[in-house]
Amino acid sequence: MYPFRNDETFVRNAWYVGCTHEEVAAGPIERTILDKPVVFYRSESGAAMAMHGLCPHRAYPLALKGQVKGDSLQCGYHGFTFDGRTGSCVRVPSQASVPSYKQRVYPVLERGPWIWIWPGDPSLADVATIPSLDEVGFGQGWKYLEPIKFSGIKGRYSLLMENLLDLTHVAYLHGDMGDFDAILQAPMRITEKEDRLTVVRPMQTGWTRFHASIFGDENRFEGGSESASITTFYGPGYITTTGYITSAIEGKEAVDKTIYGDMHFHHAITPETPRSCHYFGMSSRTHRLADKAFDEMLNPFDAAVRKQDVDAVEAIEGHMNQFGEPVVELLVNSDTAAAKLRRLMQRLIDNEQPR
Amino acid sequence: MYPFRNDETFVRNAWYVGCTHEEVAAGPIERTILDKPVVFYRSESGAAMAMHGLCPHRAYPLALKGQVKGDSLQCGYHGFTFDGRTGSCVRVPSQASVPSYKQRVYPVLERGPWIWIWPGDPSLADVATIPSLDEVGFGQGWKYLEPIKFSGIKGRYSLLMENLLDLTHVAYLHGDMGDFDAILQAPMRITEKEDRLTVVRPMQTGWTRFHASIFGDENRFEGGSESASITTFYGPGYITTTGYITSAIEGKEAVDKTIYGDMHFHHAITPETPRSCHYFGMSSRTHRLADKAFDEMLNPFDAAVRKQDVDAVEAIEGHMNQFGEPVVELLVNSDTAAAKLRRLMQRLIDNEQPR
Amino acid sequence: MYPFRNDETFVRNAWYVGCTHEEVAAGPIERTILDKPVVFYRSESGAAMAMHGLCPHRAYPLALKGQVKGDSLQCGYHGFTFDGRTGSCVRVPSQASVPSYKQRVYPVLERGPWIWIWPGDPSLADVATIPSLDEVGFGQGWKYLEPIKFSGIKGRYSLLMENLLDLTHVAYLHGDMGDFDAILQAPMRITEKEDRLTVVRPMQTGWTRFHASIFGDENRFEGGSESASITTFYGPGYITTTGYITSAIEGKEAVDKTIYGDMHFHHAITPETPRSCHYFGMSSRTHRLADKAFDEMLNPFDAAVRKQDVDAVEAIEGHMNQFGEPVVELLVNSDTAAAKLRRLMQRLIDNEQPR
Repeated sequence: MYPFRNDETFVRNAWYVGCTHEEVAAGPIERTILDKPVVFYRSESGAAMAMHGLCPHRAYPLALKGQVKGDSLQCGYHGFTFDGRTGSCVRVPSQASVPSYKQRVYPVLERGPWIWIWPGDPSLADVATIPSLDEVGFGQGWKYLEPIKFSGIKGRYSLLMENLLDLTHVAYLHGDMGDFDAILQAPMRITEKEDRLTVVRPMQTGWTRFHASIFGDENRFEGGSESASITTFYGPGYITTTGYITSAIEGKEAVDKTIYGDMHFHHAITPETPRSCHYFGMSSRTHRLADKAFDEMLNPFDAAVRKQDVDAVEAIEGHMNQFGEPVVELLVNSDTAAAKLRRLMQRLIDNEQPR
Repeated sequence: MYPFRNDETFVRNAWYVGCTHEEVAAGPIERTILDKPVVFYRSESGAAMAMHGLCPHRAYPLALKGQVKGDSLQCGYHGFTFDGRTGSCVRVPSQASVPSYKQRVYPVLERGPWIWIWPGDPSLADVATIPSLDEVGFGQGWKYLEPIKFSGIKGRYSLLMENLLDLTHVAYLHGDMGDFDAILQAPMRITEKEDRLTVVRPMQTGWTRFHASIFGDENRFEGGSESASITTFYGPGYITTTGYITSAIEGKEAVDKTIYGDMHFHHAITPETPRSCHYFGMSSRTHRLADKAFDEMLNPFDAAVRKQDVDAVEAIEGHMNQFGEPVVELLVNSDTAAAKLRRLMQRLIDNEQPR
Repeated sequence: MYPFRNDETFVRNAWYVGCTHEEVAAGPIERTILDKPVVFYRSESGAAMAMHGLCPHRAYPLALKGQVKGDSLQCGYHGFTFDGRTGSCVRVPSQASVPSYKQRVYPVLERGPWIWIWPGDPSLADVATIPSLDEVGFGQGWKYLEPIKFSGIKGRYSLLMENLLDLTHVAYLHGDMGDFDAILQAPMRITEKEDRLTVVRPMQTGWTRFHASIFGDENRFEGGSESASITTFYGPGYITTTGYITSAIEGKEAVDKTIYGDMHFHHAITPETPRSCHYFGMSSRTHRLADKAFDEMLNPFDAAVRKQDVDAVEAIEGHMNQFGEPVVELLVNSDTAAAKLRRLMQRLIDNEQPR
């Protein structure tokens, strides 16, 4: 299945963002993760939990009318109850004994705004491979805003990942949101290490509408600047892109990082089905930390840009489903990073297949 | 196909409720019955009729713009007309002669509020096998209200039947509608006779919110009572369940049946497709016969309860269609009646298959 | 696939109406033509153009955010640009060179209100086979109104063509729009010549509601008249039907053609998918040319009649998709022309298949 070699397109042994912290505040929710129904909930003591979303008794969805009882979840149809840590059936209300049965439970970890889930082999789940708060830009000195969620985008996750690996699209798809032409000519430096991928694109650019958006028009500089756009792939479920990482401004001795600081756009991408995905966005930054007006401008701007990507991905997927997958693909230089990612993903997929 | 052994899940040689009396009042209606399009109409002399729903000329649906002419139905596209009793083509407006053609017509019988249809082999249709008004609770001394219709529930009919055969679900799925916990511990006495199945569950119970609903709070009793919940399966298309059939009240010499009378909930279930069904509900009772306020409370209450069942069935079916049919099923003691029904249904299905 | 012998139901080497002149006024539009996505646009110099609707780079639909640049169309995702006459890739914004690639472009011709497209082998496209303005009734002395568009009717194109070849349906399907019973008894004279088909049905008829509609009630005649209904099939994509072509009126020496002139109803039918089509309607006439009130009555009347046909076609298709294609078809004398058309279409389809 496009763009991969075989029908299997999921990397299963990976951490994905399953939901955000506030989504489980009001009770259990169901979400399809890698083509399986999963129920997420918070135990009475506050721990994030995830188990197979259907009751093994009558296949009723546990998130519908399901009630949290301690660490356990009680089905809303006949009251069968399962422990969220072990999966054991702990109660059948119409009888004294319980059958010996283990519901599938998933490794989960709550970190920062995200509740991560490991849909693959539980014995391989290692929380150390989840990107740390510091490295992605949630740590000390960073401020982050509310998540921007798109649950169930009707497009395969690879389309969204490859969108992010070729940012020349910002000059066209997002052309109405700012002047992004500088990216078109920027060289591309790609490094690949331990299943992570970094794309650095250094740019010479003057003040643009996008500079105004993220640094504030009152901080306008004259003349040129040196900056970079950096895209980092932390794994199949997580990518960050940056605003202008500004290293030099013409006529200034140093870049004042309280003004021209760093901004990360977070992209948590989780396969829903082979042809759809969830997309959790967020921005974090090291500058203008107390600027509420900026916060209020930034989140709608960010959401509008992401919505354009979502619309593009859904348009492409919709046409693939109607007309078939591409038989030609006219790849050019700017696709180098996306092509490298595709090979990396293919390798991760292949490594999971039985030989 | 779940929960049956093979792809064939319909019992065809059976009477099903096809529509209710008032549905054909305004003209022909189309309804899918056992995966076939059927047009129901009332002849000019008032007889209920059913025939194949598509005109054999150009496959136009006869219920769209179709006009009743005597016993016949005239197609709204080119005016071809077919007799509802024999199926004969009786008129082609653009020519003097008529082709020799017989449209498929179905055995139908109107009884009480229901228009029954026999979708199987017409030579086997025996109206004596339709449950009589007296036995289901429509006869002398019974009052019934308006039908509660759910046309085209997106769930296979077996899900709705099995829902009714295990009433422990009322304590959870309908838990917000009353206090139904007594059913959880009630023993289950099942009798099977001539393809009918009866489940009696005797209960000791005090006054509950559900007693208040059906008997009226002004008739509250103190202390306990002996009662039973009775479920009767009359065939694949018809099940009744009861309110509290109250046989003894603590501290009273006899149960006053004008107050604590019997109430039947009727469940006519008709397959639409292998994955969907029609559900016609109704309540009938022997007490509070002239109590209009009770009528006005009862029908919305009844409809709300049934809607919860419909929602459950659709949730289960929707998940089956997305994620596949259950591979495990954790059956317990309270599933005994449903399991027996499943075997009975399987036998009826198998008996109709060519050997 | 019904009503044809094989799965292939499209005649590809034919001219079809792809869109109307005003549809491309505001920028590129996408339309599915014979199961392919096509983008139609007008070049900066005003020429109608059509090319494959997806960018070969990332399969993004060119009509979404696409921008016309001279004769070329620029993709709204990454800015790749293709020439509308040759299909050549003429620009990739992120690099100096362009890859050698030819996007599929379609032969198109704008004539009168229609933009025609040839979806078949371009080397066979001959604009001389498009019916001329004079022969269909758009030429000197004819007035035509605004197009009546139905884009993406959920019914195969053959259903709409066969609807038009048996006009006895007007007495029933359109029975509420006028008194059309005269057509039921009219003889049918069919001529077939060079893949065109003409059906003439002479009628004796008095003044009817439909006469009133098209000739005006102030021009009522008493007694009978001689007239004809003429249906002309110009090819798989174009059919005309007529109002009463009135040749004699009882008690009048001659028919005043400024009053009782000719009226053509145009039916441009273009397959969208094997089970859906586009339907572009229009009326043209030689009488009451300056009568604005008539124009304002006529277009809604015409649209309402066509909507009834569309509804019929969609009802038939919907039932076929749900219940399967017809296994019997009760054809009678009035189906002679439709049956002849079906054989003609089958021959055209078969001729395009490899032997």
